[in-house]
Amino acid sequence: MTSGGTSTTVRQRSWWGWGTTDRALPDDECGALAALVPGLPDRPRAVPRLEDLELPPSRLSPPSTLPATTDPDVRAAHTYGKAYRDVVRALSGDLGGAPDAVVHPTTEDDVVRVLDWAGSTGVVVVPFGGGSSVVGGVEYRGERPWLSMDLTALDRVLEIDPVSRAARIQGGALGPVLEEQLRPHGLTLRHFPQSFEFSTLGGWLATRAGGHYATLHTHIDDLVESMRVVTPVGVSESWRLPGSGAGPSPDRLFLGSEGTLGVITEAWMRLQDRPRFKASASVTFPDMTAAMGAVRAIAQSGLHPANCRLLDPGEAALSGASSGSPVLVLGVESAALPVESRLAELTSLARDSGGVVAADAGRDPAADAWRSAFLRMPYVRDGMARMSAVVETFETACTWDRAEELYATVQAEVGVAVTEVTGAPGLVNCRFTHVYPDGPAPYFTVIAAGRPGSEVAMWDDVKTAASEVLGRLGATVTHHHAVGRDHRPGYDRQRPEPFAVALRAAKAALDPAGVLNPGVLIDPLPAVPS
Amino acid sequence: MTSGGTSTTVRQRSWWGWGTTDRALPDDECGALAALVPGLPDRPRAVPRLEDLELPPSRLSPPSTLPATTDPDVRAAHTYGKAYRDVVRALSGDLGGAPDAVVHPTTEDDVVRVLDWAGSTGVVVVPFGGGSSVVGGVEYRGERPWLSMDLTALDRVLEIDPVSRAARIQGGALGPVLEEQLRPHGLTLRHFPQSFEFSTLGGWLATRAGGHYATLHTHIDDLVESMRVVTPVGVSESWRLPGSGAGPSPDRLFLGSEGTLGVITEAWMRLQDRPRFKASASVTFPDMTAAMGAVRAIAQSGLHPANCRLLDPGEAALSGASSGSPVLVLGVESAALPVESRLAELTSLARDSGGVVAADAGRDPAADAWRSAFLRMPYVRDGMARMSAVVETFETACTWDRAEELYATVQAEVGVAVTEVTGAPGLVNCRFTHVYPDGPAPYFTVIAAGRPGSEVAMWDDVKTAASEVLGRLGATVTHHHAVGRDHRPGYDRQRPEPFAVALRAAKAALDPAGVLNPGVLIDPLPAVPS
Repeated sequence: MTSGGTSTTVRQRSWWGWGTTDRALPDDECGALAALVPGLPDRPRAVPRLEDLELPPSRLSPPSTLPATTDPDVRAAHTYGKAYRDVVRALSGDLGGAPDAVVHPTTEDDVVRVLDWAGSTGVVVVPFGGGSSVVGGVEYRGERPWLSMDLTALDRVLEIDPVSRAARIQGGALGPVLEEQLRPHGLTLRHFPQSFEFSTLGGWLATRAGGHYATLHTHIDDLVESMRVVTPVGVSESWRLPGSGAGPSPDRLFLGSEGTLGVITEAWMRLQDRPRFKASASVTFPDMTAAMGAVRAIAQSGLHPANCRLLDPGEAALSGASSGSPVLVLGVESAALPVESRLAELTSLARDSGGVVAADAGRDPAADAWRSAFLRMPYVRDGMARMSAVVETFETACTWDRAEELYATVQAEVGVAVTEVTGAPGLVNCRFTHVYPDGPAPYFTVIAAGRPGSEVAMWDDVKTAASEVLGRLGATVTHHHAVGRDHRPGYDRQRPEPFAVALRAAKAALDPAGVLNPGVLIDPLPAVPS
Repeated sequence: MTSGGTSTTVRQRSWWGWGTTDRALPDDECGALAALVPGLPDRPRAVPRLEDLELPPSRLSPPSTLPATTDPDVRAAHTYGKAYRDVVRALSGDLGGAPDAVVHPTTEDDVVRVLDWAGSTGVVVVPFGGGSSVVGGVEYRGERPWLSMDLTALDRVLEIDPVSRAARIQGGALGPVLEEQLRPHGLTLRHFPQSFEFSTLGGWLATRAGGHYATLHTHIDDLVESMRVVTPVGVSESWRLPGSGAGPSPDRLFLGSEGTLGVITEAWMRLQDRPRFKASASVTFPDMTAAMGAVRAIAQSGLHPANCRLLDPGEAALSGASSGSPVLVLGVESAALPVESRLAELTSLARDSGGVVAADAGRDPAADAWRSAFLRMPYVRDGMARMSAVVETFETACTWDRAEELYATVQAEVGVAVTEVTGAPGLVNCRFTHVYPDGPAPYFTVIAAGRPGSEVAMWDDVKTAASEVLGRLGATVTHHHAVGRDHRPGYDRQRPEPFAVALRAAKAALDPAGVLNPGVLIDPLPAVPS
């Protein structure tokens, strides 16, 4: 397996799983995962060959003036996102929900023309950036003919303002593609979600993605200067402003709209100088209460570490970061000033809460090991899926006053659900991915042995139990994975009803034919073909 | 005049001008202002006695179950906000637009019942917090009978969560009233707009107020954990969350809605420990180019000073901060750690751009003098108004690439407008109140001699010229004063049309009878009495 950045292999995107085919776990590595969870088979199921699978015939013949294709391989690759349930469905050869066609706009005008055509024919349009959704955000579950709109050809950095440190970037630019264009200018967006390689700026904005910053500028929302969005009733472009108090923020309505209100074609994004100073350290704690106390003190200190990732005992053991103690990985970075003193202040706060600092300054090997494991995780998940494991994540955020209760209750109740559903105990691990002065964002991983053929149903039952706990304790149904179709029940519970009323009204006004990503966020509107 | 905080005077709110009557400038101090601007009269006009003025008869008889009054003094005090145009109109005895009645809800249920009654009768409701609007946000300019809804009886801190550092606070709490309730817990909101004493939490949220923090958490928006808003179709309450990615933020729709979508009755706000460490310094520069370079370097450094206020030569001279050089006032504060080293890093950046540091650390007397002058400014403005001066402010924000051009163009073109309108040159001064990595928020003050009786018309002409420049250069019509009625033309130009479509739809859905603050932000909807 080639996993480094130096490979010269031409990388091929996987149609069924995460990322690129060259990094998928080979069969023997999949088999070795059986040691992790009792009850898994000895060897993985085979990955079906795409040419052996049958797609439903396309119901659409888009005008030749639109950049559309009905090529089966392209349709297959745009059928699902990359959730566990998507991978399992693909592995089982189920492509029944494939889009009738895929469009690849190369200009904003293409986007406008596709939406016009869709509006006049009632054809559903689902915007598709990198296709890394793990919440059913890029598929369609209704009966109407549908188009997947792949935006990755709109991938240019169009303009750079080095004085204000900002750039105008097209929505379809994948993470590495946009960073590559910024690098010669010494600038960087520094928004590194786990999906960085396989997700786009427009996708980040549409889903309010969380980056690698553990504190301060955690969500992409705060990095936006202005947005350009093609809605069915016209193009919305906000002014480039560093700050404003002129009415409700237009950008904040489109941030998180998940393709239901318009297609994000461009944004002016706030950039940074490339960091020159970095330091990291890892700290172990006797228990999660002490660890959470340290993380809270750090989050409330105003020191803004770039990394502040707490691994619970299970997560720390699984990733090899410790033999079973909670581990906190701290990192600081700056383009302007040395960071050692800030790291020392952070580790001092950690010590005050009972932490033992493993490495005080400089490059901490545990941090690098973690990053590498972090990027490999989705490939491991796919290997697990081939082994019929039930393996998926869910994430949330809550205030500190409820954090310990939430952690314990999720562990207990989701643990029980796993046992009931799968017939044996599984792993329910947790890490804090982001932290705020008023609360953490816990991220849970579930791993259990599944029954071949029933894995999705089993996961759905576990997920229902998880969502019930989160909702009951007032924790968000998603901190940065978005709502999509999978989180609708929890989102409907959480969203204030008058806001739902306002959102539905805005949707009906901007997308009167109801063609944009129906079923996501709010109920589908009836198609009104003209 | 009593201006210190130690006075035991029972302070009376001014019905015609800013703040409390005991701090209004006496006649001799008003007269002394004549030295500032050639062409002013020797002595101020008299303040009319409220009992000599006639209010239009009230057209309303609200049910006795509603907490309403038609008392003339109360109606007079709720006729206007506190813009220059409001003060001049009040001084000239013009109270023709007074509300027909004023309601003082003491419970959220009162708010609901008032909105229900208004919806069923088509009576307009204008929410009124501290009444400090300077953009026509709390008056009504239409023909329908109207109620001013004074929310200051809803002023309690209802709950404190010391672990998450957050509190549930009622929307009608004035700044000092809420800070007083937080102080025993060692916590503070630390949101100090110039209007702090005379504005409420709900008003701050409804207008996206800017606090005293020059960087980072400049707007109240970022301090919000959740909001409770009474809309005509129901109560909207978001969950307490430190962060979330579940759809577009419900709170961000109500933030900046300026009373058009609902009445903010409560919010969970993020608090801080009271700062234990503070330091400040002031720096002079040879010219504004050098000064702006320093401010930009500081804003992009990640050092996040609490204060970073740049006074241009005119502003510095007027406030006595320098004899005519630009002055930068820097301040740092922390509850956790000493701040001297951070201040040193900031002054070092200022020196790199040609700054001369007047005081390196500790309490800088210039900072204290500035704060005291800052809080006194609105009273001076009222004294000026009594001297028939045209004296008002406008504020904006733009990206750094346009900042120098904006500053120069506003100076030039508004200067010309002042001369044309008033017949003589006036002062057009500027300070930067807030700064961002990608741009500053310049705040302009205009002072010129007006013609008695024509002051408002003269200011309107100057303001039109100012708004034209801002709009042409793509600078926001308001950074933190809000839109209200006065900024409608500039706001309509700036707001993307599809967002206007969405906002109108949301308004129609949440306020079907169109009773909430019509004319603010978006066009009034026709009343639909049931």
